[in-house]
Amino acid sequence: MELEENERIDDLQYRGLKLIQNTKEFCFGVDSVLLSDFAKHIKKEARVLDLGTGTGIIGILLCKKTKLKEIIGIEIQKKMCDMAKRTILLNSLEDKFKIININIKNADEHLGREEFDVIVSNPPYKKKNTGLQNERQSIYIARHEVECDLEDIARVSYSLLKDKGEMYIVHRPERLVDIFSCFRNYHLEPKILRMVHSRQNEKPILVLVKAIKNGGQFLKIDKPLVLYQEDGTYTQEVRNIYEKGEKEK
Amino acid sequence: MELEENERIDDLQYRGLKLIQNTKEFCFGVDSVLLSDFAKHIKKEARVLDLGTGTGIIGILLCKKTKLKEIIGIEIQKKMCDMAKRTILLNSLEDKFKIININIKNADEHLGREEFDVIVSNPPYKKKNTGLQNERQSIYIARHEVECDLEDIARVSYSLLKDKGEMYIVHRPERLVDIFSCFRNYHLEPKILRMVHSRQNEKPILVLVKAIKNGGQFLKIDKPLVLYQEDGTYTQEVRNIYEKGEKEK
Repeated sequence: MELEENERIDDLQYRGLKLIQNTKEFCFGVDSVLLSDFAKHIKKEARVLDLGTGTGIIGILLCKKTKLKEIIGIEIQKKMCDMAKRTILLNSLEDKFKIININIKNADEHLGREEFDVIVSNPPYKKKNTGLQNERQSIYIARHEVECDLEDIARVSYSLLKDKGEMYIVHRPERLVDIFSCFRNYHLEPKILRMVHSRQNEKPILVLVKAIKNGGQFLKIDKPLVLYQEDGTYTQEVRNIYEKGEKEK
Repeated sequence: MELEENERIDDLQYRGLKLIQNTKEFCFGVDSVLLSDFAKHIKKEARVLDLGTGTGIIGILLCKKTKLKEIIGIEIQKKMCDMAKRTILLNSLEDKFKIININIKNADEHLGREEFDVIVSNPPYKKKNTGLQNERQSIYIARHEVECDLEDIARVSYSLLKDKGEMYIVHRPERLVDIFSCFRNYHLEPKILRMVHSRQNEKPILVLVKAIKNGGQFLKIDKPLVLYQEDGTYTQEVRNIYEKGEKEK
């Protein structure tokens, strides 16, 4: 596999998976790993869509963690698409995982309506015109709602999901009102919320939300997911998220 | 102070406060104590409204915990109003704390619009037509959205609060989507969320939400509030909620 400038191949330490990343571009974080684990109970033979797939990290993890039939990753940035496509080849997942280089906003024009069982998304976290404006443009697009916002994601997801289809999203705590309010407006009813804390007794750093298209109104809030123990090492739960894959190889 | 049948005077173990309760009626729980503590930083000389005041527990605690100017408690059940009024006399708070026997739904017809700095509420938690229907009617009204629901509370609160006025509410975790979605619809923007857990690493049992009328969109999620330590005794934070009052006497 040939690499371009500033690219490297990372060993995901999960069932032999490898990922091509570019050190100057947006690189995956723990949020993608947690989201793919949060979504791991999707049904067998599911048709899955990843909105804003980036390097393809969530998709390749889901290919290994679940028995999904097919996953399509949508990504607006051509350079990221190229990396994701090579990552798919590198992991021999080309029969299951396809990448399409379009804007999330237009996804329902390119794909069949009500055809997906599951949608996952690790979207840009920040509102437009917030934060540092001097970031590299491609990183700014990955982090900020420049090209698409939560409302676009909710609208497109409602259109593309089957009735009772599942939506899994990871986001920042400060956007929880936006997520709940917007999702309900688009009949994507939030059903499970899980807070992610760096350490016990600290405020959360991420939120994981599962919503169901046309689902009934009743939210279950799970126990907190804590990343680190007091000594700075991963908690048993986080170790399981990684190591389980190793054992299942 | 004369008591009626089944009534008793409880010592709140907080700065000498006493509370009349009826053992056959709805009695206060830790939720009211936590809500009054959550709201304790309201500004000096605030005009406060308690929607669904019940026994008056939140109001009398707020009279001691804050430097509020005046608090009005609204309660639909006449029997609860009578008890609350006697509790107010028992604690010599009649200059600050008034009770009005009306439905929350009609509160904005009886009170001046945009006149309150703060609204607090420990409302009925459950939706209409859910749960056990064979409860005593007065307890059923206190627990279920029979006489008023979240939307009534949001509508009335928006009308009665001053611009940038504060709303504090305690509720069940499963209603968090309802709260966020409904509050935003009525321009009561949720600004702080705190989850209450019985024990660490368990799912939350209550949520505390602070909203601001016409506030900007950015939610802060606090660190979890944990009630019990592993040995079953209160955590230091909960002990402080009670004991601080004792020390300040």
